[in-house]
Amino acid sequence: MVAPTGTALSEENPLATDEPIYDIAHLGHVELLTPDLQGSAAFFTEIYGLFLEAETTDSIYLRAQHDHDRTTLKLTAATQPGLGHLGWRTTSPHALARRVQALHDAGVDGAWINGDVGHGRAFRFRSLGGHLTEIYFESERFVAGPGQAPFLPNQPQRFEPHGAAAARLDHINLLVHDVAAEREFLREVLGFKLRERLVPARQQLELGAWLSVLTKSHDLALTREPTAATGRLHHLAYAVDTPQDVLRAADVFLDNGTHIEFGPAKHSRTQGLFLYVLEPGGNRVEIFTGGLQIYAPDWEAVTWDTESNGRSTAWGLAVPDTFHTYATPPVAVPERPASAAATY
Amino acid sequence: MVAPTGTALSEENPLATDEPIYDIAHLGHVELLTPDLQGSAAFFTEIYGLFLEAETTDSIYLRAQHDHDRTTLKLTAATQPGLGHLGWRTTSPHALARRVQALHDAGVDGAWINGDVGHGRAFRFRSLGGHLTEIYFESERFVAGPGQAPFLPNQPQRFEPHGAAAARLDHINLLVHDVAAEREFLREVLGFKLRERLVPARQQLELGAWLSVLTKSHDLALTREPTAATGRLHHLAYAVDTPQDVLRAADVFLDNGTHIEFGPAKHSRTQGLFLYVLEPGGNRVEIFTGGLQIYAPDWEAVTWDTESNGRSTAWGLAVPDTFHTYATPPVAVPERPASAAATY
Amino acid sequence: MVAPTGTALSEENPLATDEPIYDIAHLGHVELLTPDLQGSAAFFTEIYGLFLEAETTDSIYLRAQHDHDRTTLKLTAATQPGLGHLGWRTTSPHALARRVQALHDAGVDGAWINGDVGHGRAFRFRSLGGHLTEIYFESERFVAGPGQAPFLPNQPQRFEPHGAAAARLDHINLLVHDVAAEREFLREVLGFKLRERLVPARQQLELGAWLSVLTKSHDLALTREPTAATGRLHHLAYAVDTPQDVLRAADVFLDNGTHIEFGPAKHSRTQGLFLYVLEPGGNRVEIFTGGLQIYAPDWEAVTWDTESNGRSTAWGLAVPDTFHTYATPPVAVPERPASAAATY
Amino acid sequence: MVAPTGTALSEENPLATDEPIYDIAHLGHVELLTPDLQGSAAFFTEIYGLFLEAETTDSIYLRAQHDHDRTTLKLTAATQPGLGHLGWRTTSPHALARRVQALHDAGVDGAWINGDVGHGRAFRFRSLGGHLTEIYFESERFVAGPGQAPFLPNQPQRFEPHGAAAARLDHINLLVHDVAAEREFLREVLGFKLRERLVPARQQLELGAWLSVLTKSHDLALTREPTAATGRLHHLAYAVDTPQDVLRAADVFLDNGTHIEFGPAKHSRTQGLFLYVLEPGGNRVEIFTGGLQIYAPDWEAVTWDTESNGRSTAWGLAVPDTFHTYATPPVAVPERPASAAATY
Repeated sequence: MVAPTGTALSEENPLATDEPIYDIAHLGHVELLTPDLQGSAAFFTEIYGLFLEAETTDSIYLRAQHDHDRTTLKLTAATQPGLGHLGWRTTSPHALARRVQALHDAGVDGAWINGDVGHGRAFRFRSLGGHLTEIYFESERFVAGPGQAPFLPNQPQRFEPHGAAAARLDHINLLVHDVAAEREFLREVLGFKLRERLVPARQQLELGAWLSVLTKSHDLALTREPTAATGRLHHLAYAVDTPQDVLRAADVFLDNGTHIEFGPAKHSRTQGLFLYVLEPGGNRVEIFTGGLQIYAPDWEAVTWDTESNGRSTAWGLAVPDTFHTYATPPVAVPERPASAAATY
Repeated sequence: MVAPTGTALSEENPLATDEPIYDIAHLGHVELLTPDLQGSAAFFTEIYGLFLEAETTDSIYLRAQHDHDRTTLKLTAATQPGLGHLGWRTTSPHALARRVQALHDAGVDGAWINGDVGHGRAFRFRSLGGHLTEIYFESERFVAGPGQAPFLPNQPQRFEPHGAAAARLDHINLLVHDVAAEREFLREVLGFKLRERLVPARQQLELGAWLSVLTKSHDLALTREPTAATGRLHHLAYAVDTPQDVLRAADVFLDNGTHIEFGPAKHSRTQGLFLYVLEPGGNRVEIFTGGLQIYAPDWEAVTWDTESNGRSTAWGLAVPDTFHTYATPPVAVPERPASAAATY
Repeated sequence: MVAPTGTALSEENPLATDEPIYDIAHLGHVELLTPDLQGSAAFFTEIYGLFLEAETTDSIYLRAQHDHDRTTLKLTAATQPGLGHLGWRTTSPHALARRVQALHDAGVDGAWINGDVGHGRAFRFRSLGGHLTEIYFESERFVAGPGQAPFLPNQPQRFEPHGAAAARLDHINLLVHDVAAEREFLREVLGFKLRERLVPARQQLELGAWLSVLTKSHDLALTREPTAATGRLHHLAYAVDTPQDVLRAADVFLDNGTHIEFGPAKHSRTQGLFLYVLEPGGNRVEIFTGGLQIYAPDWEAVTWDTESNGRSTAWGLAVPDTFHTYATPPVAVPERPASAAATY
Repeated sequence: MVAPTGTALSEENPLATDEPIYDIAHLGHVELLTPDLQGSAAFFTEIYGLFLEAETTDSIYLRAQHDHDRTTLKLTAATQPGLGHLGWRTTSPHALARRVQALHDAGVDGAWINGDVGHGRAFRFRSLGGHLTEIYFESERFVAGPGQAPFLPNQPQRFEPHGAAAARLDHINLLVHDVAAEREFLREVLGFKLRERLVPARQQLELGAWLSVLTKSHDLALTREPTAATGRLHHLAYAVDTPQDVLRAADVFLDNGTHIEFGPAKHSRTQGLFLYVLEPGGNRVEIFTGGLQIYAPDWEAVTWDTESNGRSTAWGLAVPDTFHTYATPPVAVPERPASAAATY
């Protein structure tokens, strides 16, 4: 038997290469701010298809039917819509400790909080782009109550589709001023993997980056903030299981008077089928399915150039202007060069 | 700022818990033996929907349209059908070194090979159940040739669906005499995660185990070998993207005279939609889609009991007897207790 | 201009051929008997997905979300499950008069009734097999109430999917002693078109016939009654729009404890995707989609022979024995020749 | 038994009402002109998914995999793209004679032709809008050749999906100067049934009409010709079986460099899922699925008003300008009032 030593590897000494980091397991929860808490709550439970899990004075906590965790969405009353915070669950307590250390080493200021409905202590900090971010490990698993138990024990709850039947928390899209710096920061401190990036040839400026923590096409999208604002949300997405579920969701939104902004159509980046709507509080939310499964540990980030084949939608559907100009909290977009159109 | 130290964690000291291992990235390739190499090659390229990548005197190498790697299936002429070997790609060269060391520590005999068409040097050993197994990191990425380039650069090749249009290598099901010992061995040396297990109440014997390396419902299924044989294959599966693709594959098989053994129907375990057929060499192959996405790093393995809700198919479809008695290479099943029926 | 006379036609004088009759528009409504009216009502409204339209002392009236008419299903309390009656809507008042005359000419006894909730006067008679049948023209169109109006005016109501979301009344399957005589009777008096028939080679006996009134694969299936009983129901079917809707319905039934007898799978005859369950009253009901669209006015009936390719399910799924032995009202099946297995 | 007389009908004497006419069975074939016969032929056989049936010097004849008839599309070399002619098959020889008589009675000039590859003698005339139209009964049924026979005898051929896998001829959209006059003409002489119409409130001019012969949402769409040209084609459509097939077709077109003009998305009128592309000759062709099934014999035509809910696409997708300005043969659109935008 050949000795299983490192020296038996190829001459270029691949052991010198940085290893992929597997310390973040998934997007665990998101807090959305809403100036219309009742309207948003009704939308998410009756139309978008989530389940109410808990309520406090200013917030309500929700989950989707396939979410393993007890809470994945927190809605909090506020004067403006936007992102409250987002939370990434680590793969272990050790992983949490390592990431907190990495943040410390990177000079990031942060603090532990004691937790919230659905999860335990979390380390809270602001990312470069100003988005309030938590990392945590301790999470409360959803346990089906009486009458909610599934027939098959590997499902969190019985099948109770209602409305658009959003099935599980999937990804989030944040606006940042410096996309390249933000994704490099997240790679370094949290181990995010860059999957795709958009760099129009004429601008040589990174307008978008799609990152994932394990095998999804993306858990986080970063796109360029067109204003001076910081910490803004482009959209939050829950997944459904099939393309047909996205088409069905569109019919649900249609008859419930929900404003459909864009879709259903297929993304060029990520390859997912998408549908964007605005919830009553003003935040953009997506119903998403599919997308690349990236199993290759050495995936090379794909660079897109809008001047060649980099159209935003795979099938060529035009992108509505609001998709580039609207985010929450809303602010006026000062000016936008024509070349920025049809980008992400 | 609270110091980000380990002592800040909860009192139960979760750091003492074993961390999940992320050293295996995915099932990389499988070699099937076939007594009808020409028949098998024609089936896999024309009916199952793979692409021919390379040929040698005794073997041909294939891949599916969404496979990132150059080769995922090797067909080799042999007197009997069955498994040649299977290969797991690691997440890094370091991870490979760690796993080889773990095998060494566990007293497993093995040896390095120089590689094969599509991948570099690999460490080869026999698992407890006798299946020839490789682990490796160096892999050749598929590069689309002239006329095969996709319009969108994040796809390996242009969309050329033919036949059942199998899209990417997904999982394998092996037969072993001691399911519990095998999955514990694979957990220890390779870091496989146990997702579900079947333990009929009357027998108190583990008849099946479903394991994954990252977030899929399973990359490997182990079910109980009913004969004295070792190293046998139950089935190999490629995935497609949607349930409709599975129904479509059934129509393709129907009109091509392919023997459909079982399905389309929905698995109880894994929740995937399945379709099993026999290829001309005699091996069972599956077209699979969906299945649980397991993001929770602390997923508790689900234990199924056939005497309660543990029916094999979610919707109650009866399992054909051959599914319990036939595997490759085929051997006579001596006797089978009635209680083993309708199990996996 | 050539004179448009009959003599200009081909020499075989096709004008001598019988013309197709277009006097029946569709299956308009069905009355099911149930020994558990409350259970049946709860099943059809909450699980199968219909809407309650009206109630009387002994009956309730339902419709599906895409049904154009106000009522398509009537449930009536009875000691035994089974068919109350079925009603065919004619294409015009003239057509109704013509069909009543044809029945009269054929010596069929019948009588006008004044109508029921949802439709006007109807001519009621028993078919050869003893099933109580109505033909009528005057029908009440469904008008969406406040809060039920659709966004798009070409839909009967807003999209309110619940449960299996049965979308519209589709077809019915009746048991008769003499399949060939029954379908010939219905061709003569009502203009039904024979689309497919099952005649096993060894028996030279017609075991099944699939008939339609316009372009569907079938509005009525006739299969052979294996007992001395008359007027029995094999199943009633509502359609959904896509195969995915059938798979989804199976998940709904699974978690609601509904007994799934057979499917989802694809019929050989009609090519539809099917799913059979038993409602609490004991009647078999189906969720169906797809199926042949028969536009050719001179379609030649396809004759199936179970001994060749005439398997009941397209993909080879075994037919549960109950599918051949159970009907409503239930009676013991005296004996069944082996050759009758796997038939319809 | 109550006498089945007309006087037994309701007091309003519905027998006085015109009866629906069932003399046209379906759209039987269409001839498209193309300045690039080889390019069009390659597109329709390799990308759109049809099968070549016959060739002459200037024309080729094609059919789709589910077409019952031998030929449904004829491509003919010409200097300009556009419609050669369209053919409606009648439900019987009698029906043909009746329709020819009705044309004669209406003063329409026409003549018999001896037939073409795939059909027998036909009566040929120009409709009000100038489109060359045939009606005929004698049609050649497709018979599968060796190697093409299906496993199931109720299908015309084995399942050989290729390219977008267009499944059967579905409908055609013609441009006419006077939509209301054209559809009234077709109702009178051929029995077409008006299903939906578009009449913007401000214009009080009918901009679109959707007509069918039996139960489909439409076999023929008429939309307003914006130029002085006559006899122009807006698009020709083949159907596929499921929404997933439309999404799949979009991926096929994407990677084959086919220009996708519009879709996939859902029509408001007809409720079908659509996808429009341009074939190499310049004609617009559609892949279509679903759509209303209209069984009610007394369906009241739905009138849409673009100023209220009458948006063209159900989910709000913007209509590309070319969809209103481009047709074949192409001519410059002189001027178009803004109110005509977003219409059909």
